[in-house]
Amino acid sequence: MSLTKPRTMPGVLELLPLEQIAFQSTLDIIRRNFERFGFLPVETPAIELSDVLLTKTGGETERQVYFVQSTGSLKQGDEPELALRFDLTVPLARYVAEHEHQLQFPFRRYQMQRVYRGESAQRGRFREFYQCDIDVIGKDALSVRFDAELPAVIHGIFSELAIGPFTIQMNNRKLMRGFFERAGVIDPEQQSLVLREVDKIDKRGEQYVRDTLIGEHFKLPLDAVTQILAFIAQRSCGHDDAIAKLDALGGGNALLETGVAELKEVLAFVRALGVPEANYAINFSIARGLDYYTGTVYETTLNDHPQIGSICSGGRYENLASHYTKSKLPGVGISIGLTRLFWQLREAGLIGMAQSSVQAMIALMDEADLPKYVELATQLRAAGINTEVQLEPKKLGKQFQYASKAGIRFVLVLGEDEIANGTVSVKDMPRELQYQVSRAELAKTLRVEIEQLAAMPKGLAP
Amino acid sequence: MSLTKPRTMPGVLELLPLEQIAFQSTLDIIRRNFERFGFLPVETPAIELSDVLLTKTGGETERQVYFVQSTGSLKQGDEPELALRFDLTVPLARYVAEHEHQLQFPFRRYQMQRVYRGESAQRGRFREFYQCDIDVIGKDALSVRFDAELPAVIHGIFSELAIGPFTIQMNNRKLMRGFFERAGVIDPEQQSLVLREVDKIDKRGEQYVRDTLIGEHFKLPLDAVTQILAFIAQRSCGHDDAIAKLDALGGGNALLETGVAELKEVLAFVRALGVPEANYAINFSIARGLDYYTGTVYETTLNDHPQIGSICSGGRYENLASHYTKSKLPGVGISIGLTRLFWQLREAGLIGMAQSSVQAMIALMDEADLPKYVELATQLRAAGINTEVQLEPKKLGKQFQYASKAGIRFVLVLGEDEIANGTVSVKDMPRELQYQVSRAELAKTLRVEIEQLAAMPKGLAP
Repeated sequence: MSLTKPRTMPGVLELLPLEQIAFQSTLDIIRRNFERFGFLPVETPAIELSDVLLTKTGGETERQVYFVQSTGSLKQGDEPELALRFDLTVPLARYVAEHEHQLQFPFRRYQMQRVYRGESAQRGRFREFYQCDIDVIGKDALSVRFDAELPAVIHGIFSELAIGPFTIQMNNRKLMRGFFERAGVIDPEQQSLVLREVDKIDKRGEQYVRDTLIGEHFKLPLDAVTQILAFIAQRSCGHDDAIAKLDALGGGNALLETGVAELKEVLAFVRALGVPEANYAINFSIARGLDYYTGTVYETTLNDHPQIGSICSGGRYENLASHYTKSKLPGVGISIGLTRLFWQLREAGLIGMAQSSVQAMIALMDEADLPKYVELATQLRAAGINTEVQLEPKKLGKQFQYASKAGIRFVLVLGEDEIANGTVSVKDMPRELQYQVSRAELAKTLRVEIEQLAAMPKGLAP
Repeated sequence: MSLTKPRTMPGVLELLPLEQIAFQSTLDIIRRNFERFGFLPVETPAIELSDVLLTKTGGETERQVYFVQSTGSLKQGDEPELALRFDLTVPLARYVAEHEHQLQFPFRRYQMQRVYRGESAQRGRFREFYQCDIDVIGKDALSVRFDAELPAVIHGIFSELAIGPFTIQMNNRKLMRGFFERAGVIDPEQQSLVLREVDKIDKRGEQYVRDTLIGEHFKLPLDAVTQILAFIAQRSCGHDDAIAKLDALGGGNALLETGVAELKEVLAFVRALGVPEANYAINFSIARGLDYYTGTVYETTLNDHPQIGSICSGGRYENLASHYTKSKLPGVGISIGLTRLFWQLREAGLIGMAQSSVQAMIALMDEADLPKYVELATQLRAAGINTEVQLEPKKLGKQFQYASKAGIRFVLVLGEDEIANGTVSVKDMPRELQYQVSRAELAKTLRVEIEQLAAMPKGLAP
């Protein structure tokens, strides 16, 4: 029989078991924090009806959609009626509109699933990847206080992940538009275009943006452009500085004043929620590409790894599901693109992958004693310790080698002597320690050891 | 703007948040048990290359495959190069063959992901559903002891899910084939065809199978058919009875004797692993449709709900990945079709969905005290209690109503009096109890209450 080369399509991140364990523990930390703050789980099917998924006509998104067809439909040459979701926001809109009368508002939902995009193959671009989203959806109205809850959740997550210092950077679209208005850019269409240019400043540099805005296409007065560029260059350092920078903006129009007031309220509430002031800042350059956002916008960056870019972004929007329902559903949401983040952290050496989910391995010394090994394993498992028993005869050295390669922390030996005196020999592989424990004390001893390591403030770092 | 009706395709199970919480807790129990026994997590992309996924030509499977195409490929009229996985076994074979030199054998892997099948729309049939699989893959050889480990895992899972008494039914394909051989059905091809007929006995009845086997097509002697039907009617009750039934089969050929010896070893090891004898049995009618299996085969049924059929099935196979590698990779695996199981348990009223993942809600009494509420929430979250704060003013009655509908257990009131004397009023909603606790004791008190409820032996049952 001729063999087929086993391989995946380009643009997916398939992990080896130890990497998958690290990935899974990241997912667990994110989920735990979402739930701590009262967010409820939602999962939607990966396959949606095309006409439901693609309500907006054309554009970049549609070009990247994966369409789905069963064999039958393909043979008949039908137009594909099914497609894979490309984000979690459209499915959320569909979900909330569909189940509106069975949900309670404000509706705090989290969703952690894979999404699919027909991206061109390129290093660091993924065609199938995890998004971890939270959104709060209100009915008719939603307090700006919720805009402050999201940074608190994000703070919880990135603190626990322990991937280094980070800053949640905030801005407000009303504030931005108000400022532009005051600087003479009054047409909302043009404001959007200017916002889009401003959003490029990190990639293209200030000179490029200045030239574009005073150039042929925009024809803005130099004075306005200078004001705008000075505005977007501002970053706050600490809570009081953020408030001072907001006060220094002054007033001049309703939009600007509303934006300033909203951002001030958000900042005050972020502080009340216990987020340290080192972890949040205002950054007037953050616009977020989408026209979708109408108030608070967020980006999160790792202070020591600016090249990674934003690891968690989102904002406030006016109406979630206008394509599906007449109900007005304002919301605020934030998203972590976890596959890309994990890939980048791994590239930067920030993911530690030494430890297996298997915590203990019982060596096979004498096949006649196998029932005793298995009994010990059952006892450990009942005490919540993930335990593997060597079931096939192998030299002891090979068994230790296996445990070491597999990242299993404890190797347990139950030899003749140990059985005779009711003990177990424990080898703590990473610590290179060896000791004997009475069998009655074993589970407790391992639990304490495991908890001590887990309590060390290092999270996923090696 | 005209509205699009928000809806999903037929054949998916989309859950409301409280149902999703119950589903998630089922997933968590399954995963925890998989990990307790040392199984390692693997996730593979939902999209695979068609030529890799569909190595076997034609057949039922291919007719049910969903093909995937990006917009560009669709426009060019290309044949689809991508397809969605229809099970987790083919991706496992591809994964093991692809990463063979980076894995350690025996390789214990678990995988809990959605699979996709272009099924015809029908009640209880799903086009997108979860499978939860474990497999152990050996290199060249794999001890039959692993065949005993899987029922121990399954026992752990269904005990913890607490959905009523269940029986893991076992058989062995060698034993079956050997018995058939002795009864005069010698040709392996014909044995397979007889197995396939025998597999229909629960659906079509004994008379139908008897008539088929003595009829036109098979032309088996009545005596052979009588022997076979008496054989497959046997079920054991308790460990000793299982051994007695195996002994009573007698010998006669190598295949039968090997099968009996294997099944005896598996049963002995299942018992050593602590599985109560009420939870396993031999059932000589279990054949599993696929020709794929070569040794032990399993099905699991709920004693009080036989109509649900097998909730967890699998078996031993000779070679996992012969399409992708020349390495011989024998294995044993078992699979839970969780979406269908959850749906059936819900239909049978066996899923309790009263409790939210949100454990406590802090009522909003006076907006001026919001910072105090938020501080309390931070304190509870740090103690591991999932807490929501009411952030928008609402009448107290409405807030209680919300908590009740949302399945939140504790409503916490921090009114003027409570603030003055350093206490919190706790309302335990399902128990209809109300009491005051000092603020310092609150987290501990709630933890104890939550753990007491969790320790009650009722699992997911209402």
